[in-house]
Formats: sequence, C-alpha cells, structure tokens
Amino acid sequence: MKLKNLAILLTCGLGLIGNSSIADATFPKSPSEIVQEAPDSDWVNIADDDLVIITLSNGKKFSFQLASQFAPIHVNNIKKFIRAGWFDKAAVNRVQDNYVVQWGAPENTPTPENIVQNPPSEYDFPLRGLPFRATPYRDAYAPQTGHTNSWPMASNGRNAWLVHCYGMIGVARGLAPDTGNGGELYSIIGHSPRHLDRNITIVGRIVSGMENITALPRGTGDLGFYVSDDQKLQFKEVKLASDLPIDERPHYQVMRNNSPSFASWLNARANRGGPFFTKPAGAVDICNAQAPIREK
Amino acid sequence: MKLKNLAILLTCGLGLIGNSSIADATFPKSPSEIVQEAPDSDWVNIADDDLVIITLSNGKKFSFQLASQFAPIHVNNIKKFIRAGWFDKAAVNRVQDNYVVQWGAPENTPTPENIVQNPPSEYDFPLRGLPFRATPYRDAYAPQTGHTNSWPMASNGRNAWLVHCYGMIGVARGLAPDTGNGGELYSIIGHSPRHLDRNITIVGRIVSGMENITALPRGTGDLGFYVSDDQKLQFKEVKLASDLPIDERPHYQVMRNNSPSFASWLNARANRGGPFFTKPAGAVDICNAQAPIREK
Repeated sequence: MKLKNLAILLTCGLGLIGNSSIADATFPKSPSEIVQEAPDSDWVNIADDDLVIITLSNGKKFSFQLASQFAPIHVNNIKKFIRAGWFDKAAVNRVQDNYVVQWGAPENTPTPENIVQNPPSEYDFPLRGLPFRATPYRDAYAPQTGHTNSWPMASNGRNAWLVHCYGMIGVARGLAPDTGNGGELYSIIGHSPRHLDRNITIVGRIVSGMENITALPRGTGDLGFYVSDDQKLQFKEVKLASDLPIDERPHYQVMRNNSPSFASWLNARANRGGPFFTKPAGAVDICNAQAPIREK
Repeated sequence: MKLKNLAILLTCGLGLIGNSSIADATFPKSPSEIVQEAPDSDWVNIADDDLVIITLSNGKKFSFQLASQFAPIHVNNIKKFIRAGWFDKAAVNRVQDNYVVQWGAPENTPTPENIVQNPPSEYDFPLRGLPFRATPYRDAYAPQTGHTNSWPMASNGRNAWLVHCYGMIGVARGLAPDTGNGGELYSIIGHSPRHLDRNITIVGRIVSGMENITALPRGTGDLGFYVSDDQKLQFKEVKLASDLPIDERPHYQVMRNNSPSFASWLNARANRGGPFFTKPAGAVDICNAQAPIREK
C-alpha cells in the first residue's frame, strides 16, 4: 500500500532538514511511523459512491470524498451535477492566498434538472446519535473538537459541525445561507478559517492531489478571482468512482478514529518526540489532527 | 496608501462570491473596512534595517521583516549573510504542501566571516518587560496568546514566544537546537504548525509578495525537497532596505497592536458581522489575527 495525500503530508513535519527517516528505539514512534504500521483493521474504505475524481486539462488529478452523512441534500445535488456533465465544463476561477481555491462552471451553463436550487443549510447536527469522539485538547473556537467517522468536527455539547480545516470542501454561496446549490465549490488552502464554521455547508475533503490545486497562481482580482478566462485552469472530466469501470476505480482508506492506531497517532501528534523536538506542545488543534488517508 | 500583503488578504474573508464591497450602515464595520480607515497614528513604520527584499530570478519579489527584538543573534547572522552575498546564490529548495517553503545557498557555498556558527536557541523570552497584550480569546496550544509590538506571541504567564503562523519565517536547523545559523530559512505556507513553537527560532515574517512563493510547485522528494537543481527557483538579489539608495527603499507599516483600530479590528475578526455571516464565531485564534501590514 502506498501512503498518499495531505493527511500523510501533515504527519511529515518531524524535522526541517530531512530527518524523517530517523527511527530509534530510544524515541517514541513518530506520527508517520504509526500510520505506516497501522494494521488493515484500523482503516475503513472510502465508498466508491462518495469519491469524486477530477481530471484537469493539464492531465493532473485530484479527488475528494463527499460528506454524504452530513450534507445529504447538497451531496445529492453535487452527484447530479457530476452525472449531468456540469463539472466537466468547470474551471478554477479563484485562488486567494491563505484562504481558498474555488471552481465552478461558467455562468451561462444550464442547470441540470432535478437540482434542489435552494437547499437548506446543512451546518449543524444534533450531537445525540453521532459517534463523536472528542480529543482531550483545547480548541480556540469551540468547547470541544474531535472526530465523527474520521471527519473533523467541533461541538458545543448539544450540536456538532464539520470544521473548515485545510483541504475541506465547502459550497460557495451568496449572502443568504440557501443560495449555494453545490455547483460551485471551494477548498481551504491556508490557515484554517474557522470563522466559516456553521456559516457554510461543508460537503467533503480532498483525498489526493491537493498539491495540484494549491500551487496555482493566485488570482489578482478582488478576493483572488482570476480576471480573465485564460488564467483559469479548466477541468477535463469529473467522475464519481462508482461510475467508472470497476478495475479503473482508485481506492482510498481513512484511519478509523476509534482505532488503537488513531489514539497512538493523535497522542504522537500532540507530543512530538524523537531527536528533533525539545519541547513537545502537549496539545494539537483539530486542523493539525485530520485523520490519515492512504491509497489502498 | 496602497493596502497590501497577506495580513490584508487575511481580512478579506468576508464572503465567497465577491461581496467584499458591500458596506451598509446597518452592519458593523468589517475587518478590512477598519484597516482601510485606520488613521496614520495607528500604524508604525517597519525599520529599513529590518526589511529584507528578495528579487527572484523570475523578476518577482517578496520581502520580510526581521524580528531583531527577539532573535538578535540569528538576525545579525542573517544580515551578515545578506551583505556577504550569500543569499544572492540561494534558491528555493523545498516546498512541502501545507507546511513550509524553504530556501538557502548551495551546500558548497563558503560561509561568510564573522557568522556565529552555533547560535543559541532564541525561542523563549521572559514575559516581564515585554509590552505583551493578550487577546481575550482561547488558544489550542498556550495559556495565552496576543501581540508584542504587533508580533503574534503565546505566553504561559512567565515566558512568551513567537508563534508559527502562516507567513512567519524560521531558521532551518538539524537535530540539535543550535545547528541553524540563519543561512537557511523557511516560511509557513499552510495551517499553522504550532508544534514547532519553542522548537525553532523564528526570525521574521513575510511583509509582501507571499503569493510569489506559496504558488510554487510542491517538491516531490522526501519532506517536499526538490529532487533536481533545475526545479529550484533561483534568487537573483537579496538586500536590506537600509542598503538601498534612499529613494529606492520600499516602506511598510504594521498596525500598532495597542491602537484603537487594532482593538476594533480584532473584535471584528472574532465577531464577523455583515450580511454574509449568520453565526459569528465569538473567537479568533492568534494565527487568524496577525497584525495588518500596509505599504506606505
């Protein structure tokens, strides 16, 4: 199995001069060692029907997982947009440094049939019934943070909500909360703008190829929008994995947040050991604790 | 005066569809409106002798402010490196997504004279005597966070330290804390890796041109290092502003963290109003509250 994606990259921050390969029995295991050694039983498959694969016009790809459990109305819209070819006409139209990369179809693109045009906001969920597991660590924004089915969430003890971490995907909208239908999406590419939590519906997270959209030139217009069409990176094809022939589907797994490996990994993220660190933080914020994802 | 740089970009996160120009007397002022309207008395000049201007081989530039108050030994080294032409030979040798961009001179470059080869770590400072002003907001990592002379800091009530926010610049080092001499530097380009606080000496922050180094291709080697020299973006010239002819020096100002505008701005960052937001966070973490910087 090959380790991939931003969640793994996040675990690589052991040293700055290239000492990630140092392993020494006198030091506790690093986060990346724990991920490497996690048994298959500590991982869960990302469903084919929740995996979106984007091929860009430059031949590069990225993929994301839909949060169908949390934003079913928006996610259903997005699947309809995909199957109608809407996103095949899309392009990256905005890259604002330390904030978001955003994509959508041109304004005159006809909306497919059966799209819910003004879906209700899907921000907040009753905590009761969710398998939410809080971390023991403090958060700057919410009384508690933790994971539900390996998604990063915050909670006030009554409700829980997905949080705007690096790589999370949200629904661009206008001023009214119900004005985003899922045909225009963005991903976070900077320090996590947690003030967007409970203000925008989150519909997914990047699973692979994040580096293919984070290194795009920043837009020079207001809010990082590109000022001309020729600056926009076109999409070539967008598919649900479940619509691909079985032998062409990529497969990813996320580490179960109720697994022994996850507990070790979270602890190691909060208490960096090894030869490099002199003062472990004793803490980790939720956006530095996004569940590891790997290619199966 | 023209508003610039990442700190200003940070304040732009009002909406995702381009509604930043909306101003309405029924809404409180947005962070960017407060920055625009802040009187000259609420800004302080960045000293010419602390301003480093990098011209890249592609003609683009970026600049950073040295934290001479906090890391004087490392900063003195960096000034000697600059004046000896060391950084004119430098290149970006590492871009790790959601982590750092790093630059330095080739390995065989002779070290200039008078460099302190193993400077002591300059991580922690006694709080007593510092004009540290805590924010009223919680932090995930430290008992308190706030600003000292407009630098983002954390404190445990006894000591204070600079924090690893987006755009902050640190000294790359090996395993021992005194192995970085300032000849190799990095800047944070993702969600703030606060676990590096008090483990690496911070020597500055980006003031302009951040977008010229954040959009570089990610390195494909271990830890995001480039695997061949031709992937590296070369530096062309690195100068202290104070070494430029007076009429060629750029000038930047940072908002005083003890000014009325700063207090309003911080409050507006924590409690986003306006027509877009439905649930203000009532909180802001220190890395979403980096002091605004403008070109004078």
